[in-house]
Amino acid sequence: MGLNPDDKKTRSNALTHCHAPDAVKRDYRGENCPPQRIFCVRICFAQRLRGIFGGMQKSFELLVQDRRIKARHGRLLTAHGAIETPVGTQGSVKAVSPRELCELNAQIILGNTYHLFVRPGIDVIKHFGGLHKFMNWDGPILTDSGGYQIFSLAKLRKITEDGVHFQNHVDGTPAFISPEIAMEIQSALGSDIAMVLDECPPWPCEHEYAARSLEMTTRWAKRCKQAAKSEIRNPKSETNAQLSTLDHQLLFSIVQGATFEDLRREAAEAVVAIGFDGYAIGGVSVGEPEEEMIKAVESSEPILPVNKPRYAMGLGTPPQLLEMIARGMDMFDCVLPTRLARNGTAFTSTGTLNLKNAEFTMDRRPIEEGCACSSCSGFARGYIRHLIKAEEILGLRLITIHNLHFYLDLMRQARDKIDSGTFDEFRRGFVSNYRTRDSEPAI
Amino acid sequence: MGLNPDDKKTRSNALTHCHAPDAVKRDYRGENCPPQRIFCVRICFAQRLRGIFGGMQKSFELLVQDRRIKARHGRLLTAHGAIETPVGTQGSVKAVSPRELCELNAQIILGNTYHLFVRPGIDVIKHFGGLHKFMNWDGPILTDSGGYQIFSLAKLRKITEDGVHFQNHVDGTPAFISPEIAMEIQSALGSDIAMVLDECPPWPCEHEYAARSLEMTTRWAKRCKQAAKSEIRNPKSETNAQLSTLDHQLLFSIVQGATFEDLRREAAEAVVAIGFDGYAIGGVSVGEPEEEMIKAVESSEPILPVNKPRYAMGLGTPPQLLEMIARGMDMFDCVLPTRLARNGTAFTSTGTLNLKNAEFTMDRRPIEEGCACSSCSGFARGYIRHLIKAEEILGLRLITIHNLHFYLDLMRQARDKIDSGTFDEFRRGFVSNYRTRDSEPAI
Repeated sequence: MGLNPDDKKTRSNALTHCHAPDAVKRDYRGENCPPQRIFCVRICFAQRLRGIFGGMQKSFELLVQDRRIKARHGRLLTAHGAIETPVGTQGSVKAVSPRELCELNAQIILGNTYHLFVRPGIDVIKHFGGLHKFMNWDGPILTDSGGYQIFSLAKLRKITEDGVHFQNHVDGTPAFISPEIAMEIQSALGSDIAMVLDECPPWPCEHEYAARSLEMTTRWAKRCKQAAKSEIRNPKSETNAQLSTLDHQLLFSIVQGATFEDLRREAAEAVVAIGFDGYAIGGVSVGEPEEEMIKAVESSEPILPVNKPRYAMGLGTPPQLLEMIARGMDMFDCVLPTRLARNGTAFTSTGTLNLKNAEFTMDRRPIEEGCACSSCSGFARGYIRHLIKAEEILGLRLITIHNLHFYLDLMRQARDKIDSGTFDEFRRGFVSNYRTRDSEPAI
Repeated sequence: MGLNPDDKKTRSNALTHCHAPDAVKRDYRGENCPPQRIFCVRICFAQRLRGIFGGMQKSFELLVQDRRIKARHGRLLTAHGAIETPVGTQGSVKAVSPRELCELNAQIILGNTYHLFVRPGIDVIKHFGGLHKFMNWDGPILTDSGGYQIFSLAKLRKITEDGVHFQNHVDGTPAFISPEIAMEIQSALGSDIAMVLDECPPWPCEHEYAARSLEMTTRWAKRCKQAAKSEIRNPKSETNAQLSTLDHQLLFSIVQGATFEDLRREAAEAVVAIGFDGYAIGGVSVGEPEEEMIKAVESSEPILPVNKPRYAMGLGTPPQLLEMIARGMDMFDCVLPTRLARNGTAFTSTGTLNLKNAEFTMDRRPIEEGCACSSCSGFARGYIRHLIKAEEILGLRLITIHNLHFYLDLMRQARDKIDSGTFDEFRRGFVSNYRTRDSEPAI
């Protein structure tokens, strides 16, 4: 798979968010990270099949396993419905309403715990009965632990075995998060899938640092599982959302280990031994070359149980998603579709288009011929270009909807091709046709 | 009717856009007018009754005339459907999609000719077959002449009997607009209702200046009518939109005369003598006290023919609209619903709410209890407040939708009350219950 400029930008962007190697006490490179306004919600594409399975079982079902490669089509049940995997993913659901997400069949979203913790605050969300009710979304929600944003956004971080002390990036209020608190918060949010608190080593990273970090992450994972059990037995929050979903909150652990194959294997073995509902590959898309990203996934994947979902965090471009699916990954999340839309960049099956370019001024075609999204059904490239140039919100809305549809459709195609045994040909064809225009803006 | 802070802000804002009194050659106060990014489209609420009337007749039908006051319920036929009046109006349709406008039953929109002229340019819109096709809106469109924005936004304006020389506010390109060019542009845009080019005197304004300006505006109105006829006989644009709608483009004239009753009457008589499809009251909402605004309308209205629609330009707050309907006005346009939404301000039947206020943090109620809009059906004040504080686009979208619905519903109620002969009681009750919160932001 070629390394295209899109990938470089993804990595470059991610690099500014990663954190420096000092597991005991350190100042992260926060000063180089302008406060991002990534919203609290990111989205995973999926087809929710609520009701088909009757009760609210905690289970992952492997529907189709490709015979030649590791690509697989599965189904994950959550308290708010089932998710069909691979679930192609994208970025924050900026500018998009729950109704539009529903119409896009994008039925699991990702809530950023850190952002919600800082603003409006967990007490507010508890008051409203949990995140589903607060934001009027009754589909599945995955919450991260908040750790990644603490490391990348907050100020004056101090990391200890116990947890992380920090000051939030909005008003500097000091706070502390531990594995136990991360579980308590996600329990109060009432998400369907919670993530353990981990430490994501930066790239590049020394073996010794990565090994020490990994050991702490494993200890934190154990504490998270223990805390989650305790929350079920003796919930600290009494919101309706919590009471109704807590029994069904799935807990995913995260495999770290930087770019070292032995550490990746060790990390995977350690978390599998503890036992979780799903396993994420973390510490990818943090600035490393794409080959390293693929190697990290390839090192971890064989250790992971077949009957649990695998989630490659923070990925990726359309070709990257297909490459990861080919390597046995089921879930992804990525900000590209929404973030690039805000710069006027649209995805197509042959690459990205920067609709700000003058070449589109008189272009009567939709963003992509044959695309079934509502933007392509009604609006020409020339009109969308006008809206973007005039800084009209409708312009970025139209591209966002298209980009979300594109990612969703790519995942739907991937599932279909897995089912029909032609995924590998599909992947090769797609990747070889996909080009990134030179004009694409930095993200 | 009380003069509330909302009104003051409307006037104060409008004042910065008005132009100085020198009818021959002058520099307008453009330097005090920060370049606005009002989008090209404003909206008039109406119920389009496409198809009911069969052919594309040019006609206004007075359905119900209140027996005691001048309020009336009418129906205006355009090339893209019928409009039921009174049509409550609002500001630019920023952040709203055509589908959402359709769902709101807001079926006539206002395109700002100046903005479209500057960006993307009339040639681009002609290339796309007219404004309807360009923006994917097949309902009625009213275009202004562009004059108001030239006077309020463009640089280095020089006004002569022939027309106005100016440099646009985006890139300073010099341009010239005359009554004939204004007609040609609106013909190319393919709008259903075109407006004559006029000069809108500022407030305050001397009688002598207002009189001279008025005479020129009357001469320009004649030239506009002549040019519109010529366009029909020998169209300069060959876009499909033009060919299909030109026969049916209605032309409205504008009554000026500042705050002088004699001049208002004279202006009305002059344009009625020329004969147009409808008559606007211009030069209101330009900074004058509300009593002056009402007096200007009351002076002009008796001269206007009963069988033609009357359009009060640039109005207004919800109470102002009802006051104007009571004085025989049928159409309005106003930026308040969308502009205030972007500041977090929502309209309710008892006044405005600033949802940024901390008092709404834990508020589980919708913006207005009993409101049927999609925002109130799904989202709590506390959640919308969170979105606005986090500067999320969805927040201003939800308030915009509510505010548009509020204005639309107010006009629907007005029509119903006129039909049932209870409009005056309705108006009095509404106005006496309507209060503006002190916390409301400046617009």
